[in-house]
Amino acid sequence: MQTIALLPGDGIGPEIIDEAVKVLKAVEAKYDLKFQFKKSLVGGASADIYGTPLTEDTVALCKDCDAILFGAVGGPKWDKLPKEFRPEQAILGLRKSLGLYANLRSVILFNALSDASPIKKEIIGEELDIMIVRELTGGLYFGKPKGIERTHDKTRAFDTMEYTDEEIKRVARIAFETAQRRQKRLTSVDKANVLETSRLWRTIVTDMAADYPDVKLCHMYVDNCSMQLVLNPGQFDVILTENTFGDILSDEASVLTGSIGMLPSASIGDGKPYLYEPIHGSAPDIAGSGKANPIACILSVAMMLEYSFGAKDAASAIKNAVERALNEGYRTFDIQVGAKKVVSTSEMGDIIVENL
Amino acid sequence: MQTIALLPGDGIGPEIIDEAVKVLKAVEAKYDLKFQFKKSLVGGASADIYGTPLTEDTVALCKDCDAILFGAVGGPKWDKLPKEFRPEQAILGLRKSLGLYANLRSVILFNALSDASPIKKEIIGEELDIMIVRELTGGLYFGKPKGIERTHDKTRAFDTMEYTDEEIKRVARIAFETAQRRQKRLTSVDKANVLETSRLWRTIVTDMAADYPDVKLCHMYVDNCSMQLVLNPGQFDVILTENTFGDILSDEASVLTGSIGMLPSASIGDGKPYLYEPIHGSAPDIAGSGKANPIACILSVAMMLEYSFGAKDAASAIKNAVERALNEGYRTFDIQVGAKKVVSTSEMGDIIVENL
Ligand SMILES: CC(C)[C@H](C(=O)O)[C@@H](O)C(=O)O
Ligand SMILES: CC(C)[C@H](C(=O)O)[C@@H](O)C(=O)O
Repeated sequence: MQTIALLPGDGIGPEIIDEAVKVLKAVEAKYDLKFQFKKSLVGGASADIYGTPLTEDTVALCKDCDAILFGAVGGPKWDKLPKEFRPEQAILGLRKSLGLYANLRSVILFNALSDASPIKKEIIGEELDIMIVRELTGGLYFGKPKGIERTHDKTRAFDTMEYTDEEIKRVARIAFETAQRRQKRLTSVDKANVLETSRLWRTIVTDMAADYPDVKLCHMYVDNCSMQLVLNPGQFDVILTENTFGDILSDEASVLTGSIGMLPSASIGDGKPYLYEPIHGSAPDIAGSGKANPIACILSVAMMLEYSFGAKDAASAIKNAVERALNEGYRTFDIQVGAKKVVSTSEMGDIIVENL
Repeated sequence: MQTIALLPGDGIGPEIIDEAVKVLKAVEAKYDLKFQFKKSLVGGASADIYGTPLTEDTVALCKDCDAILFGAVGGPKWDKLPKEFRPEQAILGLRKSLGLYANLRSVILFNALSDASPIKKEIIGEELDIMIVRELTGGLYFGKPKGIERTHDKTRAFDTMEYTDEEIKRVARIAFETAQRRQKRLTSVDKANVLETSRLWRTIVTDMAADYPDVKLCHMYVDNCSMQLVLNPGQFDVILTENTFGDILSDEASVLTGSIGMLPSASIGDGKPYLYEPIHGSAPDIAGSGKANPIACILSVAMMLEYSFGAKDAASAIKNAVERALNEGYRTFDIQVGAKKVVSTSEMGDIIVENL
């Protein structure tokens, strides 16, 4: 029996989580798995009731589970709140308190959607499959000191980008291992011509390459990487980078596929639970309208089955069911390319379950 | 009489500077201007001879001039040197010691090259004209403390992202004024949901908007901006952002035009001299082969004429001469789209001079 924490959050979060749960239930019987679900409020939904986007109870509940499925958080309603009350603090707090230091974002061009890319066909090609490994609990996000200092004649704000050797090693190890299971090419992205953290990053990753002789390592500056993703995305297999660079580059990479509503992610650490979430946001403008695309959340469940439960067959079955639905021309409202029939969030969930 | 410091640098730097000087000389007679040129080594070329990429003499020479034309620096030959000897230190040192706190990067889709964009025509449209205002002397690049600390059991590297209110105000003012002269839309980019520097940035920019009631201001997170540049670049008029974000986003934006060999930039401060440079690098692989595209450097000269010398007519004349050369089908080796005749670096310079 595996326990799964469900954190639907705000906006379209609850709707997509419902579809992901449908899929998990369908998988249970077929693959001899047994799931128990524990739901909790998070983000704005939690702030409204408990005055904080992430309660200690929710953290405790998560720690007690085998895996976490996170929907999305945020919305205009909470945008003006002081930082500590804002929905984003929920996801930042979970990452930090659960030690989820590596974020794996799968950037895939679905065959049926290859025309949806904003990039010309000659450039994007027929296939795109990049895995971005983003450091998730270090760098500017959590470095100390961090604050705003006011004196009589001036205000000064500061954040600290910091990394220890151990923080770099553990996430680099995951990137090398990921590359070993794929095309064996790793691009480590930094700004070593300007930043001390990047210089340490580059030294450590370079040294580590000796332990992975089958992986071809190269280094790239972050500004160049932001160009290369557009000019020649097919050159990448696995990209490893620090937290802030990873935030920017992974979002850039995700839109190349034309299907940001389809891309899942896993946040992993040294012990369970890992956290799974779609990379898209809470889309408050379409919440409740049945227009949300549940596929990113459903594919996040596939990642969960593979990484947390070792259920590779079930994971592939879900991916195949999704591909089938797309090939048959079913689309949610966000993606119209190749649509034969535009369906609602829950209809898409049902179709994928039927295809299983 | 205007004195111009010429800093050719490395790789293709000297070749493109030669063409830019040709254009300046052609402009002299026609527009009643008089230039005196002072050349100095910089980057790897300087390190090879003086042991440092930027000598005090070069800084002094620049301070004495009315404007600076910078080529490009860097190359594999100097890549392994310790930081203080590396070519990039030249440009970083010049920016800081001359107080060039605002970098203006013009991202333009040339009509004749509109098919060169990696982005689909439906998305990029017929015209693209974004001005990026990047803060250039603050943030992670220069913030203190910065270093690597080794203790017996751990190594820790750190950089500081810091901004004072004054640093934010002066660059924001330039962005608002730039917007006033254009489409009057300003997008300020930050990561205010995570960074204290961004929160101060957003507060100050928001307050300042009251002084520019004709400018429509909006705020965008940096990760979202990296997506929007690919999904819908036409939404932007002027983008204002801090140093590191600007480094990444402006490079991303520049490749959308398909013509990174064509884009100029100006780095400005409170007093003269300002510095002008192409946004592309030193391209050591094609140095000396006549394949370099001199247009970015020539258009940098147009920016110099406009911003430093108030010679708007001469600036427009140069831009028109470049457009004419492109419309006539002349291309350097880097851009083959729409080419009727591929010409060398110096041939392109000659053609533009003839068109003047
Ligand atoms: C919501 C925000 C704090 C978060 C981040 O910056 O990490 C998001 O952009 C993401 O990438 O998951
Ligand atoms: C060479 C490097 C230090 C520089 C920067 O990061 O500012 C360059 O990338 C640029 O954008 O001008």
